Amino acid sequence: MQMIRLTIAYDGGDFHGWQIQPNGRSVQAELEAAIQRLTGESVRLRGAGRTDAGVHARGQVAAFSTASGIPLDAWRAALNSRLPKDVAILSACAARPDFDPRRHALRKLYRYTIHADPVRPVLERRTRWHWKGRLDVAAMRAAAARLLGEHDFASFANQECAKLGKHTVRTVDAITIDHGPPCLTISVEGRSFLYNMVRNIVGTLVDVGAGRFAPAEMDRILAARDRQQAGQGAPAHGLCLEWIQYPDHRPAEETA
Amino acid sequence: MQMIRLTIAYDGGDFHGWQIQPNGRSVQAELEAAIQRLTGESVRLRGAGRTDAGVHARGQVAAFSTASGIPLDAWRAALNSRLPKDVAILSACAARPDFDPRRHALRKLYRYTIHADPVRPVLERRTRWHWKGRLDVAAMRAAAARLLGEHDFASFANQECAKLGKHTVRTVDAITIDHGPPCLTISVEGRSFLYNMVRNIVGTLVDVGAGRFAPAEMDRILAARDRQQAGQGAPAHGLCLEWIQYPDHRPAEETA
Repeated sequence: MQMIRLTIAYDGGDFHGWQIQPNGRSVQAELEAAIQRLTGESVRLRGAGRTDAGVHARGQVAAFSTASGIPLDAWRAALNSRLPKDVAILSACAARPDFDPRRHALRKLYRYTIHADPVRPVLERRTRWHWKGRLDVAAMRAAAARLLGEHDFASFANQECAKLGKHTVRTVDAITIDHGPPCLTISVEGRSFLYNMVRNIVGTLVDVGAGRFAPAEMDRILAARDRQQAGQGAPAHGLCLEWIQYPDHRPAEETA
Repeated sequence: MQMIRLTIAYDGGDFHGWQIQPNGRSVQAELEAAIQRLTGESVRLRGAGRTDAGVHARGQVAAFSTASGIPLDAWRAALNSRLPKDVAILSACAARPDFDPRRHALRKLYRYTIHADPVRPVLERRTRWHWKGRLDVAAMRAAAARLLGEHDFASFANQECAKLGKHTVRTVDAITIDHGPPCLTISVEGRSFLYNMVRNIVGTLVDVGAGRFAPAEMDRILAARDRQQAGQGAPAHGLCLEWIQYPDHRPAEETA
């Protein structure tokens, strides 16, 4: 048996998310079907993390174990020719037999793109959130700085998470906000995130940019551990999982 | 009566081109319908030039005459709220009564994007031509330089054009090829172009990059005045009309 690690790009627009579910198209199911068409094997693909309906990826990572004798350098093209247009394998490489894409991930980067302009985006409308009003970028950066490091992010998780008494402490390693008008891109790095956490952080930062919260209020919002205290959630289609870093390689190699 | 000049962006993917036609959705018809819904007037919109089915625009220009008393600064938002998601008005401004978007255009820039990589584009698949093989960018630039200036471009026009004995001399003011892997963008500037000329130039340059033609063969291809001598045509979805320059303003202002 050989463990294969895949790096995957997908357009989340026509998917009900990464994970297989009874009703609705999933990225995981498309990939498992392509592997089955290629090898005849019924494999279970393990992903590094779920992405919601509508969320995109340029560097999702998943792995599966196979008895197939297909040469390693043939997997990528063979799978791509069996996948629909909105999913592609960027790389397929050998991994250790115990490789677990979720547990072994060291760091992930999610990038959120806001089209901040009175006129909506047209060619980029599937990958940007249209925000018509002005945004105070300096205030957003000041607010973002208060989220850096280890915190209880319960206020930025969906309510189920808190009700279930799940562990809600996470570490945000970096948040950067780049402003290239009309776009604002918010990049959030960390080892793992709570369900909807990045979209809730982005929506709350936009609320800061729009003047609804002062940057210093981030401290109060974090302390409240209450989703109602934070701001709006940002829509799924502006979010993209850019890369995932593992101990044995730098993420740049995955996308090279 | 007031002449209004519109700058327009559209995603050509779901259109049968700019121009109104009996069967199939056109950008012109969507715009005329939006103007009618807003003003009650049945106007005839004049465009700077037709774009084919599938070709995009970030700076198409069109104009119409109206008796409406709608304030100038209200047109953009009013039309945008009456247009489908794949068309947007970037600006609406007053023009001279004799303004003719086609005849008064000084220069246009078309940009073509090639995704040159073994793996197809996913998130950008609607706006890039996927080219799997290697491309010799230096050879493409050398070939492009031979197309600069005034030439008879009959070999790069569709065959109807030549058969009809139309005037096929045009001037290419600039062709630049930017290489930011995995993308190659080819920008072509000129006052006007023959039908399919930019796509046929791009396809022929790709043939040069792939080694099918030597750069010096451009001279022979131009001299032949025969579409069969040039290379392949590039598909529509990689092409975008970026801007059109007029005597009274620089194009940058349109997209600001």
